Amino acid sequence: MYRIGIVGDGYTAADLLRILAGHDGVKVTRILSTENVGRKISDVYPHLTGYCDVVCQTSEIDNLAGECDTVFLALPHGLSVPMAARLVKMGIKCVDLGADFRLADTQIYKKYYGLTHADPELLKTAVYGIPELYREQIKQTALVANPGCFPTSAILPLAPLLAAGAIETGDIIIDSKSGVSGAGRTPSPTTHFCAVNENINAYGVGTHRHAPEIAQELSRAAGSQVDITFTPHLVPMNRGILSTIYAKLRPGVKAAGLRSILEEKYGQETFVKILPEGIMPHTKWVYGSNMVHINVVADDESKRVILLSALDNLTKGASGQAVQNMNLMLGFKEDTSLRNPAIFP
Amino acid sequence: MYRIGIVGDGYTAADLLRILAGHDGVKVTRILSTENVGRKISDVYPHLTGYCDVVCQTSEIDNLAGECDTVFLALPHGLSVPMAARLVKMGIKCVDLGADFRLADTQIYKKYYGLTHADPELLKTAVYGIPELYREQIKQTALVANPGCFPTSAILPLAPLLAAGAIETGDIIIDSKSGVSGAGRTPSPTTHFCAVNENINAYGVGTHRHAPEIAQELSRAAGSQVDITFTPHLVPMNRGILSTIYAKLRPGVKAAGLRSILEEKYGQETFVKILPEGIMPHTKWVYGSNMVHINVVADDESKRVILLSALDNLTKGASGQAVQNMNLMLGFKEDTSLRNPAIFP
Amino acid sequence: MYRIGIVGDGYTAADLLRILAGHDGVKVTRILSTENVGRKISDVYPHLTGYCDVVCQTSEIDNLAGECDTVFLALPHGLSVPMAARLVKMGIKCVDLGADFRLADTQIYKKYYGLTHADPELLKTAVYGIPELYREQIKQTALVANPGCFPTSAILPLAPLLAAGAIETGDIIIDSKSGVSGAGRTPSPTTHFCAVNENINAYGVGTHRHAPEIAQELSRAAGSQVDITFTPHLVPMNRGILSTIYAKLRPGVKAAGLRSILEEKYGQETFVKILPEGIMPHTKWVYGSNMVHINVVADDESKRVILLSALDNLTKGASGQAVQNMNLMLGFKEDTSLRNPAIFP
Amino acid sequence: MYRIGIVGDGYTAADLLRILAGHDGVKVTRILSTENVGRKISDVYPHLTGYCDVVCQTSEIDNLAGECDTVFLALPHGLSVPMAARLVKMGIKCVDLGADFRLADTQIYKKYYGLTHADPELLKTAVYGIPELYREQIKQTALVANPGCFPTSAILPLAPLLAAGAIETGDIIIDSKSGVSGAGRTPSPTTHFCAVNENINAYGVGTHRHAPEIAQELSRAAGSQVDITFTPHLVPMNRGILSTIYAKLRPGVKAAGLRSILEEKYGQETFVKILPEGIMPHTKWVYGSNMVHINVVADDESKRVILLSALDNLTKGASGQAVQNMNLMLGFKEDTSLRNPAIFP
Repeated sequence: MYRIGIVGDGYTAADLLRILAGHDGVKVTRILSTENVGRKISDVYPHLTGYCDVVCQTSEIDNLAGECDTVFLALPHGLSVPMAARLVKMGIKCVDLGADFRLADTQIYKKYYGLTHADPELLKTAVYGIPELYREQIKQTALVANPGCFPTSAILPLAPLLAAGAIETGDIIIDSKSGVSGAGRTPSPTTHFCAVNENINAYGVGTHRHAPEIAQELSRAAGSQVDITFTPHLVPMNRGILSTIYAKLRPGVKAAGLRSILEEKYGQETFVKILPEGIMPHTKWVYGSNMVHINVVADDESKRVILLSALDNLTKGASGQAVQNMNLMLGFKEDTSLRNPAIFP
Repeated sequence: MYRIGIVGDGYTAADLLRILAGHDGVKVTRILSTENVGRKISDVYPHLTGYCDVVCQTSEIDNLAGECDTVFLALPHGLSVPMAARLVKMGIKCVDLGADFRLADTQIYKKYYGLTHADPELLKTAVYGIPELYREQIKQTALVANPGCFPTSAILPLAPLLAAGAIETGDIIIDSKSGVSGAGRTPSPTTHFCAVNENINAYGVGTHRHAPEIAQELSRAAGSQVDITFTPHLVPMNRGILSTIYAKLRPGVKAAGLRSILEEKYGQETFVKILPEGIMPHTKWVYGSNMVHINVVADDESKRVILLSALDNLTKGASGQAVQNMNLMLGFKEDTSLRNPAIFP
Repeated sequence: MYRIGIVGDGYTAADLLRILAGHDGVKVTRILSTENVGRKISDVYPHLTGYCDVVCQTSEIDNLAGECDTVFLALPHGLSVPMAARLVKMGIKCVDLGADFRLADTQIYKKYYGLTHADPELLKTAVYGIPELYREQIKQTALVANPGCFPTSAILPLAPLLAAGAIETGDIIIDSKSGVSGAGRTPSPTTHFCAVNENINAYGVGTHRHAPEIAQELSRAAGSQVDITFTPHLVPMNRGILSTIYAKLRPGVKAAGLRSILEEKYGQETFVKILPEGIMPHTKWVYGSNMVHINVVADDESKRVILLSALDNLTKGASGQAVQNMNLMLGFKEDTSLRNPAIFP
Repeated sequence: MYRIGIVGDGYTAADLLRILAGHDGVKVTRILSTENVGRKISDVYPHLTGYCDVVCQTSEIDNLAGECDTVFLALPHGLSVPMAARLVKMGIKCVDLGADFRLADTQIYKKYYGLTHADPELLKTAVYGIPELYREQIKQTALVANPGCFPTSAILPLAPLLAAGAIETGDIIIDSKSGVSGAGRTPSPTTHFCAVNENINAYGVGTHRHAPEIAQELSRAAGSQVDITFTPHLVPMNRGILSTIYAKLRPGVKAAGLRSILEEKYGQETFVKILPEGIMPHTKWVYGSNMVHINVVADDESKRVILLSALDNLTKGASGQAVQNMNLMLGFKEDTSLRNPAIFP
């Protein structure tokens, strides 16, 4: 039985607790918080009543040392670096759900997050945590950079097509639509119910921090620089991301071939499903599950390619993928405690 | 052309501006704010782009004096008292959308709002602003206490039945369901989209401040003490209140008579409609309008009476009723700028 | 490994499949349908992609005989009677999610459902399937009448208080609020998105079929006739029921005693939680789980008692409770495949 | 006082009635229906209680002749052609809210709607009803083809930029998000509340009927063939369309110039607003109003142009624009009965 620590008590922490409640091989022993120190987590989140009664402690590393074998970090950017450094040194494995270890280039990190990275050496050891792409490296590492929710939804459908040279590397447009939980639990004017309900709007147009993360991974897949335009939108729903992606067939590539590439890549994967032709992904079909649903529509004449992918931003987009990574790091079956279907309707 | 001032810039202020944009006899000349001083109101509320470009000023009375003929006060409780006192003294008519002048009994005000009322003399001159009940007094007064949203939804259906002695005065249960805008514009954990969406819950059970206001007006109507139980609920919608009200027929009263009493009372009213038998009020049918829809179901054998009423909490429950009161105070036709049907669907 | 048949392919069938996907002791071998014969259930419900590929067959009993050990019936009323009769005769255990075996009095069944009950003898052998009240009988029976969603939400909080003689048996008011999935999957004007969204309304006022079911079980608990008023409302959410229940303390009973009665009754139950004082149930806290959250507010002076209960109408209100019943009938641990916490937010 | 007929009783008819209730120069005298013949329209749509009590008649032209001066046709495609032909011949002006007179090329009409156009001569006389582009022609015609909701949202921002030669005519991508009322009032599995709520999905990918309509108008504006990719999405809200449009700057054109082109084109328009830099359109800001909000983000280095536009699909996207057209045809001030701000929040 591995002992698990969670640093943070926001929505991703809550979803970790939901998922880990069904995991027979681990036990959450510590939850660190800033706002809820001294409160039982089931008082903070009454849906956990009967599942987890851990009392939140202050966000100090001494509260983890000797009490945890693996730690999930769900912290604002910048704060994970020193904590991960000390934990890894103690031999404690870490999955960081924040952005601190996702961008290999510290210049880009500085540009988008405004911080000089405090531990570039540690950064080099981190593995970008999409198991379908980096499974073997994840098994070996002590530190996983759990991907952003938007990047996961964009990288999974695009990476195999770029790796196969099937689509152009320029002018890829990613138009993403997200539920509100992606904005976190802290109240703000933009997450007020009345600001979101009966509304849709774009935000961070041309400036969102997930853009360089997507570009990095797509460029790795393509083996050359990939240019993207990324526009996120806020949709009146709690959970879910739908990405509608526009690309172009490369000369000589047939539209029909794209489906084959995707099916070959993901045919054996538990959590990635290529839907039958004509069935477009719906976010509700993956609500609360670790699934990604993908489809592709392409046209030989116009060369236009449209990819669609749906996932739950808190599960496959955050905490579910984090547990999937943990399972790999600790030697569990990869889908342990992640097998539940979506809640529908 | 009367000049109008609005003190406050929350949701009720926004709805006042929406409604007054269609009023030919008045012009909004001043908006006072604490958070948005120096900003155009159409930058704060972009839906007012093209309708109102007044720049918000600080919340001081000097910004109103000489510039306004009538003022709407949309302030936290306690703050309206001194401002209304000075405005009335200057000869400026006031409609207060807060709670400061609703409760005639200053002891009850103190119990529920934690404040000693600072101007009991002025309080005596205030008229409770439901035009369907106090039309003539409203025309004469310089100070209207605009009712709470829940009270309006409860008083309109109950008052005529109590006045007619048709229902018992004890054990009236008011189970109300409200949209989220009733909680105001300030972000909080309870108005976060993810806390409200796909959820319903009761709050303030047995303690809500609207209970004594309802009891006061029902007792006035009955001519004797009326006992109520009031339970508000938060519903995942922006606007709307539905009140489901349980009462008992008094001995000798026939169920069929209740409908007649309501139809007689409200048959000539523009803004109160008794729906046909079997058609239950839907809040969407009054969305954005100043209408109240009412129906009644009663049973001679069990003596059980069920009243249902629907209104828009920001319009007939706040700003629409406030403009209706202003129209009466200034001698306009009562429905001026309030004739628009609901937005449906 | 028991073989399971499901008759019907609506929302309750979908939720059975979701829940049973995590059950190690059973396997769904047959799904009978009228509209989707020949289609894989994962084509009808793409959220089941990767979980269940059973092909729907026609709704004939020969498609179950010899292929199933236990059958869930999710059929319109009237249709379950002949099918359950034949299945039970074959030695196949049945959980009926419809209304055919819930009402012990065939006169009341006829009044509310318009049908003469075709098998009153079989009806006598059916057990009303709330495990927290009838656990031992459920273990012994071949036929469980799975309760309605509203009744479950009303009976669980009220039954122990009536059994203890703590509240009056007259004038109990049950004001219930339900998500839209309770209305089933068939499209209709009242379940159109635009008719429900941004709206709340009461329906079936004074006439809903769940009223006699509630009265029957409360009268059993009280040992005497209990009179209720039941008003359901439609709320813009997919899942969830909140019932706000109004009763009166009996003479000599203290308000504080009610909580003790509930805690004693349910303290050892996995699926019923009495929330801490002051924490009101939220339907989102039980979304997709088999939990019921209950609280009570009472006042010694006015004698007024307010009970609140929240459950997921498709899970504890239908398919989750059905699996709980199946677990008891087949000798599994009662919470098998039902342990998942709610999806929050 | 002009007499108005409305043929159809769906959502666009309901919104026409809402808007015309505030119009002093016209009176609705006839409503033709197939499903609701003999019913008062306020029984079909209770939000019209107190506003319109016209009784629906059968959908025959004799019910209009001699009783109407202008008719709005809100019919399934194909049905408007013969009715418009006869009405125009009688001297009755028509605004057709359907698709029959939008596409100038009858081959394309046949391809997308499966019908041979029955009156190509009449088609030639129809004016495409976007007043901001075709104001003078609309004033002269007897037959307006009221545009589709998606096309209005795409054409208004793109047309001036194409007309100015500022953006490329190839590879324009229009990613549109629509509320559910755009799918009409008839219940279907795809408009069931539970299928839409907490969900987003694309539909009609590569095949939607609004694509050729958009291409036609953009090509007219550009003076050459414009190639578009159009992907509509269904969003869990009643009303609203947000279009996110991706284009490319033409060589030599500066990003900053785009805003100037739009402001010059629409600066004097009542219903089209270019939002300040950095303020992205929100559909709730135009909810129930006839406004279109537009913004543009462009980058000189990458040449990427992103246009955003928001409108209410039932108002500026259908019935509001139809009344705007009627006002022009009948010589009223263009914004008569269309001046109300959006309902916010």
